[in-house]
Amino acid sequence: MIIGRVVGTLVSTRKEPELEGLTLLLVREIDAELKEVGKVVVCADAVGAGTGEVVLYAAGSSARQTKATQNKPVDHVIMAIVDQFDVAGRLCYDKAKDD
Amino acid sequence: MIIGRVVGTLVSTRKEPELEGLTLLLVREIDAELKEVGKVVVCADAVGAGTGEVVLYAAGSSARQTKATQNKPVDHVIMAIVDQFDVAGRLCYDKAKDD
Amino acid sequence: MIIGRVVGTLVSTRKEPELEGLTLLLVREIDAELKEVGKVVVCADAVGAGTGEVVLYAAGSSARQTKATQNKPVDHVIMAIVDQFDVAGRLCYDKAKDD
Amino acid sequence: MIIGRVVGTLVSTRKEPELEGLTLLLVREIDAELKEVGKVVVCADAVGAGTGEVVLYAAGSSARQTKATQNKPVDHVIMAIVDQFDVAGRLCYDKAKDD
Amino acid sequence: MIIGRVVGTLVSTRKEPELEGLTLLLVREIDAELKEVGKVVVCADAVGAGTGEVVLYAAGSSARQTKATQNKPVDHVIMAIVDQFDVAGRLCYDKAKDD
Repeated sequence: MIIGRVVGTLVSTRKEPELEGLTLLLVREIDAELKEVGKVVVCADAVGAGTGEVVLYAAGSSARQTKATQNKPVDHVIMAIVDQFDVAGRLCYDKAKDD
Repeated sequence: MIIGRVVGTLVSTRKEPELEGLTLLLVREIDAELKEVGKVVVCADAVGAGTGEVVLYAAGSSARQTKATQNKPVDHVIMAIVDQFDVAGRLCYDKAKDD
Repeated sequence: MIIGRVVGTLVSTRKEPELEGLTLLLVREIDAELKEVGKVVVCADAVGAGTGEVVLYAAGSSARQTKATQNKPVDHVIMAIVDQFDVAGRLCYDKAKDD
Repeated sequence: MIIGRVVGTLVSTRKEPELEGLTLLLVREIDAELKEVGKVVVCADAVGAGTGEVVLYAAGSSARQTKATQNKPVDHVIMAIVDQFDVAGRLCYDKAKDD
Repeated sequence: MIIGRVVGTLVSTRKEPELEGLTLLLVREIDAELKEVGKVVVCADAVGAGTGEVVLYAAGSSARQTKATQNKPVDHVIMAIVDQFDVAGRLCYDKAKDD
């Protein structure tokens, strides 16, 4: 999985019917300094994430293993909101301080 | 999923039989400034997209989760036409103004 | 899927038994100018492609969705011979003129 | 699979229910000189790995083939702790000397 | 699939039980000049390959389609030993001369 930040939303009315009701969010990977890196990917949202939140997302067939995404043509899903993560003993992110 | 623009079409008569009747479109990823980036990928079309349209496409086994592509040897599918998307609070694309 | 050109062949006698009888071809991706780009991948051939031909290939589990490759340990398959493709309104390749 | 070193941990309380009880570890790939290369990925832990350990991780649908991860929306899993590995006849890593 | 050369071995005693008895080999991709390129990947071995041999490996769920790897958490498998391959009409590798 990859740690990212929700940076936007996407609206589509003409789409594969199974996608009806699914929230689509734009996410950018962040590094240990919380800097946004790499390109934007569009994720289905399985946990009610909001813009600006630090999340964990999964790709590929694993993105279809949530209740919200089963059997749907989505290849990225937000499956967790991040509370904290540390790298090399340093607390890089603490949601309690981010809110 | 990735946001892209349909940039072309592909015709093939000699192919795996299951591909019969499937529309194949060339798509290039676009960034938040709607600039085409990266290389061309060929997507099966599940939603009736046309050249120039901004679309959302999925890759891998998820590309086979639409009615048009089930059990077919395709690894990219256009599964939505994009109406709008925003990044960091800025509306990057609005189909109503693009038409 | 990716558009490529068949650039070579590969022979193997000691292999997983399910691969018996499968043709393995070396393919390189081509761009809109038909220039070979990127590295060589080895594809199973599901459509009888020959060296020099412009083909379409699929990767991942989708590569196992052809009659020739079902349940076999192959992750790339040529599933179509390309007749024509265009980008931005320009005909980039026409097999009738290539032969 | 990729050889990596566990560099951190991640905590999430609001997540897809199936993730309950799963340990999530941050891992960075290492090269033959044991230098950390590339970016951090978040792996589910199937073998009880700890921070600093050299591990082997698998990606994609293969990440769901352990008892700990079956049918769960995870796309990376640590499935082995590395004892030793060699490249070109040189022993690059020996856990007995690392402890 | 990718053409590579076996460059090393990996030993692990603490691992997912399904991996018991599986040989894990380090492989590096080679190009048409047989030069090792890119990074090391760890492959399960389905064909009895040895260090120094030129092999073909598959990734993703296709890596689980051999007798040795079925339902196991491995995402790369060596499924063939290469005898010969040619690119652009030139014989790049001939195992008979390599031995």
